[in-house]
Amino acid sequence: MTVAEQMLTTHPRAGAGADTAALVRCIEACVECAQACTACADACLSEEMVADLTACIRKNLDCADVCATTAAVLSRQTGSNTDVLRAQLEACRAACASCAAECETHAQMHEHCRVCAEACRRCEQACAELLGAL
Amino acid sequence: MTVAEQMLTTHPRAGAGADTAALVRCIEACVECAQACTACADACLSEEMVADLTACIRKNLDCADVCATTAAVLSRQTGSNTDVLRAQLEACRAACASCAAECETHAQMHEHCRVCAEACRRCEQACAELLGAL
Amino acid sequence: MTVAEQMLTTHPRAGAGADTAALVRCIEACVECAQACTACADACLSEEMVADLTACIRKNLDCADVCATTAAVLSRQTGSNTDVLRAQLEACRAACASCAAECETHAQMHEHCRVCAEACRRCEQACAELLGAL
Amino acid sequence: MTVAEQMLTTHPRAGAGADTAALVRCIEACVECAQACTACADACLSEEMVADLTACIRKNLDCADVCATTAAVLSRQTGSNTDVLRAQLEACRAACASCAAECETHAQMHEHCRVCAEACRRCEQACAELLGAL
Repeated sequence: MTVAEQMLTTHPRAGAGADTAALVRCIEACVECAQACTACADACLSEEMVADLTACIRKNLDCADVCATTAAVLSRQTGSNTDVLRAQLEACRAACASCAAECETHAQMHEHCRVCAEACRRCEQACAELLGAL
Repeated sequence: MTVAEQMLTTHPRAGAGADTAALVRCIEACVECAQACTACADACLSEEMVADLTACIRKNLDCADVCATTAAVLSRQTGSNTDVLRAQLEACRAACASCAAECETHAQMHEHCRVCAEACRRCEQACAELLGAL
Repeated sequence: MTVAEQMLTTHPRAGAGADTAALVRCIEACVECAQACTACADACLSEEMVADLTACIRKNLDCADVCATTAAVLSRQTGSNTDVLRAQLEACRAACASCAAECETHAQMHEHCRVCAEACRRCEQACAELLGAL
Repeated sequence: MTVAEQMLTTHPRAGAGADTAALVRCIEACVECAQACTACADACLSEEMVADLTACIRKNLDCADVCATTAAVLSRQTGSNTDVLRAQLEACRAACASCAAECETHAQMHEHCRVCAEACRRCEQACAELLGAL
Protein backbone atom coordinates (compact mmCIF):
# COMPACT_ATOMS: atom_id res chain seq x y z
CA MET A 1 0.00 0.00 0.00
CA THR A 2 1.47 3.37 -0.98
CA VAL A 3 1.80 6.24 1.46
CA ALA A 4 -0.92 8.21 -0.39
CA GLU A 5 -3.28 5.24 0.01
CA GLN A 6 -2.39 4.81 3.68
CA MET A 7 -2.99 8.52 4.30
CA LEU A 8 -6.41 8.27 2.67
CA THR A 9 -7.51 5.12 4.49
CA THR A 10 -6.39 6.43 7.91
CA HIS A 11 -8.21 9.76 7.45
CA PRO A 12 -11.08 10.30 9.95
CA ARG A 13 -13.42 10.79 7.00
CA ALA A 14 -12.12 7.77 5.06
CA GLY A 15 -14.77 6.37 2.78
CA ALA A 16 -16.97 9.46 3.00
CA GLY A 17 -16.22 10.32 -0.62
CA ALA A 18 -17.11 8.37 -3.71
CA ASP A 19 -14.37 6.19 -5.06
CA THR A 20 -11.21 5.77 -2.97
CA ALA A 21 -9.33 3.78 -5.62
CA ALA A 22 -9.92 6.43 -8.31
CA LEU A 23 -8.92 9.14 -5.85
CA VAL A 24 -5.65 7.43 -4.89
CA ARG A 25 -4.80 6.80 -8.55
CA CYS A 26 -5.43 10.45 -9.38
CA ILE A 27 -3.39 11.83 -6.45
CA GLU A 28 -0.47 9.57 -7.37
CA ALA A 29 -0.71 10.39 -11.07
CA CYS A 30 -0.73 14.14 -10.31
CA VAL A 31 2.26 13.89 -7.99
CA GLU A 32 4.21 11.80 -10.50
CA CYS A 33 3.31 14.09 -13.41
CA ALA A 34 4.26 17.26 -11.52
CA GLN A 35 7.74 15.89 -10.85
CA ALA A 36 8.14 14.56 -14.40
CA CYS A 37 7.16 17.94 -15.88
CA THR A 38 9.55 19.86 -13.61
CA ALA A 39 12.34 17.49 -14.66
CA CYS A 40 11.38 17.59 -18.36
CA ALA A 41 11.40 21.41 -18.40
CA ASP A 42 14.92 21.27 -17.02
CA ALA A 43 16.04 18.50 -19.39
CA CYS A 44 14.74 20.50 -22.37
CA LEU A 45 16.64 23.51 -21.01
CA SER A 46 19.87 21.47 -21.13
CA GLU A 47 19.38 20.36 -24.74
CA GLU A 48 21.55 22.04 -27.38
CA MET A 49 18.41 22.73 -29.38
CA VAL A 50 16.74 24.51 -26.45
CA ALA A 51 15.59 27.30 -28.80
CA ASP A 52 13.27 24.76 -30.48
CA LEU A 53 11.88 23.57 -27.14
CA THR A 54 10.69 26.79 -25.51
CA ALA A 55 6.98 26.08 -26.06
CA CYS A 56 7.53 22.63 -24.54
CA ILE A 57 9.28 24.09 -21.49
CA ARG A 58 6.43 26.54 -20.92
CA LYS A 59 3.83 23.77 -21.12
CA ASN A 60 5.95 21.60 -18.80
CA LEU A 61 6.09 24.38 -16.22
CA ASP A 62 2.36 25.09 -16.41
CA CYS A 63 1.57 21.38 -16.13
CA ALA A 64 3.90 20.95 -13.14
CA ASP A 65 2.17 23.78 -11.25
CA VAL A 66 -1.35 22.65 -12.14
CA CYS A 67 -0.69 19.00 -11.21
CA ALA A 68 0.89 19.93 -7.86
CA THR A 69 -2.11 22.07 -6.93
CA THR A 70 -4.54 19.38 -8.08
CA ALA A 71 -2.76 16.77 -5.94
CA ALA A 72 -3.05 19.06 -2.90
CA VAL A 73 -6.76 19.81 -3.42
CA LEU A 74 -7.44 16.08 -3.93
CA SER A 75 -5.58 15.23 -0.72
CA ARG A 76 -8.11 17.19 1.38
CA GLN A 77 -11.31 15.55 2.66
CA THR A 78 -12.38 18.05 5.35
CA GLY A 79 -15.70 19.72 4.63
CA SER A 80 -16.58 19.78 0.96
CA ASN A 81 -15.27 21.83 -1.95
CA THR A 82 -16.68 19.92 -4.89
CA ASP A 83 -17.06 22.78 -7.38
CA VAL A 84 -13.42 23.72 -6.88
CA LEU A 85 -12.27 20.10 -7.06
CA ARG A 86 -14.16 19.59 -10.29
CA ALA A 87 -12.86 22.81 -11.90
CA GLN A 88 -9.29 22.04 -10.83
CA LEU A 89 -9.55 18.53 -12.26
CA GLU A 90 -10.73 20.03 -15.57
CA ALA A 91 -7.74 22.40 -15.55
CA CYS A 92 -5.43 19.47 -14.80
CA ARG A 93 -6.88 17.39 -17.59
CA ALA A 94 -6.33 20.31 -19.97
CA ALA A 95 -2.77 20.94 -18.76
CA CYS A 96 -1.82 17.27 -19.10
CA ALA A 97 -3.38 17.00 -22.56
CA SER A 98 -1.58 20.14 -23.74
CA CYS A 99 1.80 19.11 -22.34
CA ALA A 100 1.48 15.51 -23.57
CA ALA A 101 0.63 16.64 -27.11
CA GLU A 102 3.68 18.91 -27.16
CA CYS A 103 6.07 16.36 -25.62
CA GLU A 104 4.87 13.68 -28.04
CA THR A 105 6.15 15.74 -30.97
CA HIS A 106 9.68 15.48 -29.46
CA ALA A 107 9.39 11.96 -28.07
CA GLN A 108 11.42 10.30 -30.79
CA MET A 109 14.29 12.72 -30.37
CA HIS A 110 14.22 13.18 -26.59
CA GLU A 111 13.60 10.24 -24.28
CA HIS A 112 12.72 12.61 -21.41
CA CYS A 113 9.86 13.99 -23.50
CA ARG A 114 8.63 10.46 -24.17
CA VAL A 115 8.66 9.54 -20.46
CA CYS A 116 7.02 12.85 -19.56
CA ALA A 117 4.32 12.51 -22.24
CA GLU A 118 3.41 9.09 -20.84
CA ALA A 119 3.13 10.50 -17.30
CA CYS A 120 0.92 13.31 -18.64
CA ARG A 121 -1.36 10.87 -20.47
CA ARG A 122 -1.73 8.72 -17.34
CA CYS A 123 -2.61 11.80 -15.32
CA GLU A 124 -5.04 13.08 -17.93
CA GLN A 125 -6.76 9.68 -17.86
CA ALA A 126 -6.83 9.56 -14.04
CA CYS A 127 -8.43 13.03 -13.92
CA ALA A 128 -11.04 12.00 -16.49
CA GLU A 129 -11.87 8.86 -14.52
CA LEU A 130 -12.16 10.72 -11.24
CA LEU A 131 -14.35 13.38 -12.85
CA GLY A 132 -16.58 10.55 -14.04
CA ALA A 133 -16.76 9.09 -10.52
CA LEU A 134 -17.55 12.36 -8.68
CA MET B 1 4.64 50.74 -11.61
CA THR B 2 4.58 47.44 -9.68
CA VAL B 3 7.19 44.74 -10.20
CA ALA B 4 4.58 42.47 -11.85
CA GLU B 5 3.77 45.24 -14.32
CA GLN B 6 7.45 45.94 -14.99
CA MET B 7 8.09 42.24 -15.60
CA LEU B 8 5.23 42.12 -18.09
CA THR B 9 6.20 45.26 -20.01
CA THR B 10 9.88 44.22 -20.27
CA HIS B 11 9.01 40.74 -21.57
CA PRO B 12 10.22 40.11 -25.16
CA ARG B 13 6.63 39.28 -26.10
CA ALA B 14 5.12 42.30 -24.31
CA GLY B 15 1.87 43.37 -25.90
CA ALA B 16 1.46 40.11 -27.83
CA GLY B 17 -1.47 39.12 -25.64
CA ALA B 18 -4.82 40.82 -25.35
CA ASP B 19 -5.17 43.13 -22.41
CA THR B 20 -2.05 43.90 -20.36
CA ALA B 21 -3.90 45.89 -17.70
CA ALA B 22 -6.37 43.07 -17.02
CA LEU B 23 -3.49 40.58 -16.94
CA VAL B 24 -1.48 42.61 -14.43
CA ARG B 25 -4.53 43.09 -12.22
CA CYS B 26 -5.25 39.37 -12.26
CA ILE B 27 -1.66 38.32 -11.49
CA GLU B 28 -1.53 40.76 -8.58
CA ALA B 29 -4.95 39.72 -7.28
CA CYS B 30 -3.95 36.03 -7.39
CA VAL B 31 -0.66 36.65 -5.59
CA GLU B 32 -2.37 38.76 -2.92
CA CYS B 33 -5.19 36.25 -2.47
CA ALA B 34 -2.83 33.28 -2.18
CA GLN B 35 -0.95 34.96 0.66
CA ALA B 36 -4.16 36.12 2.37
CA CYS B 37 -5.63 32.60 2.26
CA THR B 38 -2.45 31.00 3.64
CA ALA B 39 -2.50 33.54 6.49
CA CYS B 40 -6.26 33.16 7.08
CA ALA B 41 -5.98 29.37 7.33
CA ASP B 42 -3.35 29.87 10.00
CA ALA B 43 -5.29 32.60 11.82
CA CYS B 44 -8.37 30.32 11.93
CA LEU B 45 -6.12 27.56 13.29
CA SER B 46 -5.14 29.85 16.17
CA GLU B 47 -8.73 30.72 17.10
CA GLU B 48 -10.15 29.09 20.24
CA MET B 49 -13.16 28.04 18.20
CA VAL B 50 -10.99 26.27 15.60
CA ALA B 51 -13.36 23.29 15.63
CA ASP B 52 -16.01 25.53 14.04
CA LEU B 53 -13.61 26.78 11.37
CA THR B 54 -12.32 23.56 9.80
CA ALA B 55 -14.34 23.93 6.60
CA CYS B 56 -13.02 27.48 6.31
CA ILE B 57 -9.42 26.34 6.76
CA ARG B 58 -9.83 23.71 4.07
CA LYS B 59 -11.24 26.24 1.60
CA ASN B 60 -8.48 28.70 2.51
CA LEU B 61 -5.81 26.09 1.76
CA ASP B 62 -7.41 25.05 -1.54
CA CYS B 63 -7.77 28.69 -2.58
CA ALA B 64 -4.15 29.48 -1.66
CA ASP B 65 -2.87 26.62 -3.84
CA VAL B 66 -5.16 27.40 -6.77
CA CYS B 67 -4.35 31.14 -6.74
CA ALA B 68 -0.59 30.52 -6.57
CA THR B 69 -0.73 28.21 -9.57
CA THR B 70 -2.97 30.62 -11.49
CA ALA B 71 -0.52 33.49 -10.86
CA ALA B 72 2.33 31.34 -12.20
CA VAL B 73 0.46 30.26 -15.35
CA LEU B 74 -0.59 33.89 -15.98
CA SER B 75 3.01 35.06 -15.60
CA ARG B 76 4.10 33.03 -18.64
CA GLN B 77 3.88 34.46 -22.18
CA THR B 78 6.12 32.04 -24.09
CA GLY B 79 4.29 30.06 -26.74
CA SER B 80 0.59 29.74 -26.08
CA ASN B 81 -1.37 27.64 -23.62
CA THR B 82 -4.79 29.27 -23.84
CA ASP B 83 -6.98 26.25 -23.04
CA VAL B 84 -5.01 25.64 -19.86
CA LEU B 85 -5.04 29.33 -18.93
CA ARG B 86 -8.78 29.50 -19.40
CA ALA B 87 -9.48 26.32 -17.39
CA GLN B 88 -7.14 27.42 -14.60
CA LEU B 89 -8.85 30.83 -14.46
CA GLU B 90 -12.22 29.06 -14.13
CA ALA B 91 -10.81 26.95 -11.27
CA CYS B 92 -9.45 30.08 -9.63
CA ARG B 93 -12.77 31.89 -9.94
CA ALA B 94 -14.50 28.90 -8.33
CA ALA B 95 -11.92 28.63 -5.52
CA CYS B 96 -12.16 32.35 -4.73
CA ALA B 97 -15.97 32.30 -4.77
CA SER B 98 -16.09 29.26 -2.49
CA CYS B 99 -13.55 30.64 -0.02
CA ALA B 100 -15.10 34.13 -0.01
CA ALA B 101 -18.58 32.75 0.69
CA GLU B 102 -17.23 30.74 3.63
CA CYS B 103 -15.09 33.56 5.06
CA GLU B 104 -18.00 36.01 4.76
CA THR B 105 -20.02 33.91 7.21
CA HIS B 106 -17.26 34.53 9.84
CA ALA B 107 -16.39 38.09 8.82
CA GLN B 108 -18.23 39.78 11.67
CA MET B 109 -16.54 37.62 14.27
CA HIS B 110 -13.05 37.35 12.73
CA GLU B 111 -11.40 40.34 11.08
CA HIS B 112 -8.93 38.06 9.26
CA CYS B 113 -11.86 36.34 7.54
CA ARG B 114 -13.24 39.73 6.50
CA VAL B 115 -9.91 40.83 5.00
CA CYS B 116 -9.46 37.45 3.31
CA ALA B 117 -13.01 37.43 1.89
CA GLU B 118 -12.36 40.83 0.31
CA ALA B 119 -9.12 39.60 -1.27
CA CYS B 120 -10.98 36.54 -2.61
CA ARG B 121 -13.77 38.68 -4.10
CA ARG B 122 -11.22 40.97 -5.80
CA CYS B 123 -9.46 37.92 -7.25
CA GLU B 124 -12.71 36.31 -8.35
CA GLN B 125 -13.60 39.56 -10.14
CA ALA B 126 -10.14 39.88 -11.74
CA CYS B 127 -10.37 36.30 -13.07
CA ALA B 128 -13.83 36.97 -14.49
CA GLU B 129 -12.62 40.15 -16.21
CA LEU B 130 -9.58 38.44 -17.68
CA LEU B 131 -11.70 35.52 -18.89
CA GLY B 132 -13.90 38.10 -20.63
CA ALA B 133 -10.85 39.71 -22.27
CA LEU B 134 -9.22 36.49 -23.53
CA MET C 1 12.40 2.02 -12.73
CA THR C 2 10.30 4.88 -11.35
CA VAL C 3 9.39 7.92 -13.44
CA ALA C 4 11.70 10.13 -11.33
CA GLU C 5 14.58 7.77 -12.05
CA GLN C 6 13.74 7.61 -15.76
CA MET C 7 13.61 11.42 -15.93
CA LEU C 8 17.03 11.65 -14.30
CA THR C 9 18.71 9.03 -16.47
CA THR C 10 17.30 10.50 -19.73
CA HIS C 11 18.44 14.04 -18.84
CA PRO C 12 21.12 15.42 -21.21
CA ARG C 13 23.35 15.99 -18.18
CA ALA C 14 22.69 12.55 -16.66
CA GLY C 15 25.60 11.42 -14.53
CA ALA C 16 27.14 14.91 -14.32
CA GLY C 17 26.22 15.15 -10.63
CA ALA C 18 27.57 13.06 -7.82
CA ASP C 19 25.32 10.24 -6.76
CA THR C 20 22.28 9.48 -8.93
CA ALA C 21 20.87 6.85 -6.56
CA ALA C 22 20.96 9.21 -3.55
CA LEU C 23 19.41 11.96 -5.68
CA VAL C 24 16.54 9.76 -6.89
CA ARG C 25 15.86 8.55 -3.35
CA CYS C 26 15.78 12.11 -2.06
CA ILE C 27 13.48 13.41 -4.82
CA GLU C 28 11.07 10.53 -4.22
CA ALA C 29 11.19 10.92 -0.44
CA CYS C 30 10.46 14.66 -0.74
CA VAL C 31 7.54 14.11 -3.11
CA GLU C 32 6.07 11.40 -0.91
CA CYS C 33 6.54 13.44 2.27
CA ALA C 34 4.97 16.57 0.77
CA GLN C 35 1.81 14.65 -0.10
CA ALA C 36 1.72 12.84 3.24
CA CYS C 37 2.05 16.13 5.15
CA THR C 38 -0.70 17.81 3.09
CA ALA C 39 -2.96 14.83 3.81
CA CYS C 40 -1.99 14.66 7.50
CA ALA C 41 -2.76 18.37 8.01
CA ASP C 42 -6.22 17.71 6.59
CA ALA C 43 -6.73 14.50 8.58
CA CYS C 44 -5.82 16.35 11.80
CA LEU C 45 -8.29 19.06 10.79
CA SER C 46 -11.05 16.43 10.62
CA GLU C 47 -10.30 14.99 14.08
CA GLU C 48 -12.74 15.89 16.88
CA MET C 49 -9.79 16.92 18.98
CA VAL C 50 -8.52 19.34 16.33
CA ALA C 51 -7.91 21.99 19.01
CA ASP C 52 -5.12 19.78 20.39
CA LEU C 53 -3.56 19.30 16.94
CA THR C 54 -3.04 22.87 15.72
CA ALA C 55 0.73 22.84 16.24
CA CYS C 56 0.84 19.56 14.31
CA ILE C 57 -1.19 21.02 11.44
CA ARG C 58 1.12 24.02 11.22
CA LYS C 59 4.23 21.82 11.09
CA ASN C 60 2.55 19.57 8.50
CA LEU C 61 1.83 22.56 6.27
CA ASP C 62 5.35 23.96 6.60
CA CYS C 63 6.85 20.55 5.88
CA ALA C 64 4.62 20.04 2.83
CA ASP C 65 5.73 23.36 1.32
CA VAL C 66 9.41 22.85 2.12
CA CYS C 67 9.48 19.28 0.74
CA ALA C 68 7.70 20.28 -2.49
CA THR C 69 10.21 23.05 -3.13
CA THR C 70 13.14 20.78 -2.28
CA ALA C 71 11.88 18.15 -4.75
CA ALA C 72 11.68 20.82 -7.47
CA VAL C 73 15.17 22.20 -6.83
CA LEU C 74 16.59 18.65 -6.76
CA SER C 75 14.88 17.85 -10.08
CA ARG C 76 16.95 20.50 -11.89
CA GLN C 77 20.39 19.69 -13.32
CA THR C 78 20.91 22.67 -15.67
CA GLY C 79 23.85 24.85 -14.71
CA SER C 80 24.73 24.64 -11.04
CA ASN C 81 23.08 26.03 -7.94
CA THR C 82 24.88 24.08 -5.24
CA ASP C 83 24.73 26.64 -2.42
CA VAL C 84 20.97 26.90 -2.85
CA LEU C 85 20.56 23.13 -3.10
CA ARG C 86 22.55 22.61 0.07
CA ALA C 87 20.66 25.29 2.04
CA GLN C 88 17.30 23.98 0.83
CA LEU C 89 18.28 20.43 1.83
CA GLU C 90 19.17 21.73 5.31
CA ALA C 91 15.77 23.44 5.54
CA CYS C 92 14.08 20.23 4.40
CA ARG C 93 15.93 18.15 6.95
CA ALA C 94 14.85 20.60 9.67
CA ALA C 95 11.22 20.66 8.49
CA CYS C 96 11.03 16.85 8.36
CA ALA C 97 12.64 16.47 11.79
CA SER C 98 10.27 19.03 13.32
CA CYS C 99 7.15 17.53 11.76
CA ALA C 100 8.18 13.95 12.55
CA ALA C 101 8.84 14.77 16.21
CA GLU C 102 5.39 16.38 16.49
CA CYS C 103 3.54 13.61 14.62
CA GLU C 104 5.27 10.95 16.70
CA THR C 105 3.65 12.34 19.85
CA HIS C 106 0.22 11.58 18.29
CA ALA C 107 1.18 8.38 16.47
CA GLN C 108 -0.45 6.02 18.94
CA MET C 109 -3.75 7.86 18.80
CA HIS C 110 -3.82 8.80 15.09
CA GLU C 111 -2.66 6.35 12.45
CA HIS C 112 -2.29 9.18 9.89
CA CYS C 113 0.27 10.82 12.19
CA ARG C 114 2.18 7.54 12.43
CA VAL C 115 2.28 7.11 8.64
CA CYS C 116 3.23 10.76 8.17
CA ALA C 117 5.97 10.62 10.82
CA GLU C 118 7.52 7.66 9.02
CA ALA C 119 7.47 9.51 5.69
CA CYS C 120 9.11 12.51 7.39
CA ARG C 121 11.84 10.36 8.95
CA ARG C 122 12.59 8.72 5.59
CA CYS C 123 12.82 12.15 3.96
CA GLU C 124 14.99 13.56 6.74
CA GLN C 125 17.34 10.59 6.27
CA ALA C 126 17.38 10.95 2.47
CA CYS C 127 18.28 14.65 2.79
CA ALA C 128 21.07 13.86 5.24
CA GLU C 129 22.48 11.19 2.92
CA LEU C 130 22.36 13.47 -0.10
CA LEU C 131 24.01 16.30 1.84
CA GLY C 132 26.76 13.83 2.69
CA ALA C 133 27.18 12.88 -0.97
CA LEU C 134 27.26 16.43 -2.40
CA MET D 1 -1.96 49.05 4.92
CA THR D 2 -1.30 46.10 2.61
CA VAL D 3 -3.33 42.89 2.77
CA ALA D 4 -0.32 40.99 4.16
CA GLU D 5 -0.03 43.54 6.96
CA GLN D 6 -3.77 43.42 7.67
CA MET D 7 -3.66 39.63 7.83
CA LEU D 8 -0.81 39.76 10.31
CA THR D 9 -2.36 42.40 12.58
CA THR D 10 -5.76 40.64 12.67
CA HIS D 11 -4.20 37.26 13.55
CA PRO D 12 -5.22 35.97 17.02
CA ARG D 13 -1.53 35.75 17.89
CA ALA D 14 -0.67 39.20 16.49
CA GLY D 15 2.33 40.67 18.25
CA ALA D 16 3.39 37.34 19.76
CA GLY D 17 6.44 37.23 17.51
CA ALA D 18 9.38 39.56 17.46
CA ASP D 19 9.25 42.25 14.84
CA THR D 20 6.01 42.64 12.87
CA ALA D 21 7.40 45.27 10.49
CA ALA D 22 10.37 43.09 9.50
CA LEU D 23 8.05 40.11 9.09
CA VAL D 24 5.64 42.00 6.82
CA ARG D 25 8.49 43.34 4.72
CA CYS D 26 9.95 39.85 4.33
CA ILE D 27 6.62 38.22 3.39
CA GLU D 28 5.97 40.93 0.79
CA ALA D 29 9.52 40.74 -0.59
CA CYS D 30 9.27 36.94 -0.93
CA VAL D 31 5.90 37.13 -2.69
CA GLU D 32 7.12 39.83 -5.06
CA CYS D 33 10.39 38.00 -5.78
CA ALA D 34 8.64 34.69 -6.46
CA GLN D 35 6.44 36.30 -9.09
CA ALA D 36 9.34 38.27 -10.62
CA CYS D 37 11.47 35.12 -10.91
CA THR D 38 8.65 33.11 -12.51
CA ALA D 39 8.17 35.93 -15.03
CA CYS D 40 11.91 36.37 -15.63
CA ALA D 41 12.37 32.65 -16.32
CA ASP D 42 9.66 32.96 -18.95
CA ALA D 43 11.02 36.20 -20.40
CA CYS D 44 14.48 34.62 -20.76
CA LEU D 45 12.81 31.66 -22.47
CA SER D 46 11.35 34.04 -25.07
CA GLU D 47 14.69 35.72 -25.85
CA GLU D 48 16.36 34.79 -29.13
CA MET D 49 19.56 34.12 -27.21
CA VAL D 50 17.81 31.66 -24.87
CA ALA D 51 20.71 29.22 -25.24
CA ASP D 52 22.89 31.72 -23.35
CA LEU D 53 20.32 32.14 -20.58
CA THR D 54 19.71 28.57 -19.43
CA ALA D 55 21.67 28.93 -16.18
CA CYS D 56 19.68 32.10 -15.48
CA ILE D 57 16.36 30.33 -16.11
CA ARG D 58 17.31 27.52 -13.74
CA LYS D 59 18.24 29.96 -10.98
CA ASN D 60 15.03 31.92 -11.60
CA LEU D 61 12.95 28.76 -11.21
CA ASP D 62 14.75 27.68 -8.04
CA CYS D 63 14.40 31.15 -6.56
CA ALA D 64 10.68 31.32 -7.42
CA ASP D 65 10.01 28.02 -5.62
CA VAL D 66 12.15 28.87 -2.58
CA CYS D 67 10.62 32.36 -2.18
CA ALA D 68 7.04 31.04 -2.46
CA THR D 69 7.68 28.45 0.24
CA THR D 70 9.42 30.99 2.46
CA ALA D 71 6.45 33.38 2.15
CA ALA D 72 4.09 30.57 3.20
CA VAL D 73 6.18 29.50 6.21
CA LEU D 74 6.50 33.16 7.29
CA SER D 75 2.72 33.64 7.00
CA ARG D 76 2.10 31.07 9.76
CA GLN D 77 2.08 32.07 13.45
CA THR D 78 0.38 29.04 15.02
CA GLY D 79 2.58 27.15 17.45
CA SER D 80 6.28 27.64 16.79
CA ASN D 81 8.58 26.28 14.11
CA THR D 82 11.62 28.52 14.58
CA ASP D 83 14.34 26.12 13.44
CA VAL D 84 12.50 25.52 10.18
CA LEU D 85 11.78 29.23 9.71
CA ARG D 86 15.43 30.08 10.24
CA ALA D 87 16.71 27.36 7.88
CA GLN D 88 14.18 28.32 5.21
CA LEU D 89 15.18 31.99 5.50
CA GLU D 90 18.81 30.97 5.00
CA ALA D 91 17.84 28.99 1.88
CA CYS D 92 15.87 31.98 0.62
CA ARG D 93 18.75 34.36 1.19
CA ALA D 94 21.02 31.97 -0.74
CA ALA D 95 18.51 31.55 -3.60
CA CYS D 96 18.01 35.30 -3.95
CA ALA D 97 21.76 36.01 -3.85
CA SER D 98 22.44 33.35 -6.48
CA CYS D 99 19.65 34.50 -8.80
CA ALA D 100 20.48 38.20 -8.37
CA ALA D 101 24.17 37.63 -9.19
CA GLU D 102 23.19 35.75 -12.37
CA CYS D 103 20.53 38.26 -13.46
CA GLU D 104 22.91 41.18 -12.86
CA THR D 105 25.26 39.82 -15.53
CA HIS D 106 22.41 40.21 -18.08
CA ALA D 107 20.87 43.38 -16.64
CA GLN D 108 22.29 45.73 -19.25
CA MET D 109 21.01 43.60 -22.10
CA HIS D 110 17.67 42.48 -20.65
CA GLU D 111 15.49 44.86 -18.67
CA HIS D 112 13.54 41.95 -17.16
CA CYS D 113 16.78 40.64 -15.64
CA ARG D 114 17.48 44.08 -14.16
CA VAL D 115 14.02 44.31 -12.58
CA CYS D 116 14.27 40.73 -11.33
CA ALA D 117 17.76 41.23 -9.88
CA GLU D 118 16.48 44.21 -7.91
CA ALA D 119 13.56 42.18 -6.53
CA CYS D 120 16.02 39.41 -5.54
CA ARG D 121 18.33 41.87 -3.77
CA ARG D 122 15.41 43.37 -1.83
CA CYS D 123 14.30 39.90 -0.78
CA GLU D 124 17.82 38.83 0.15
CA GLN D 125 18.06 41.95 2.34
CA ALA D 126 14.64 41.39 3.92
CA CYS D 127 15.58 37.78 4.80
CA ALA D 128 18.86 38.96 6.33
CA GLU D 129 17.07 41.59 8.41
CA LEU D 130 14.44 39.14 9.63
CA LEU D 131 17.11 36.58 10.51
CA GLY D 132 18.78 39.30 12.56
CA ALA D 133 15.50 40.08 14.35
CA LEU D 134 14.55 36.48 15.20
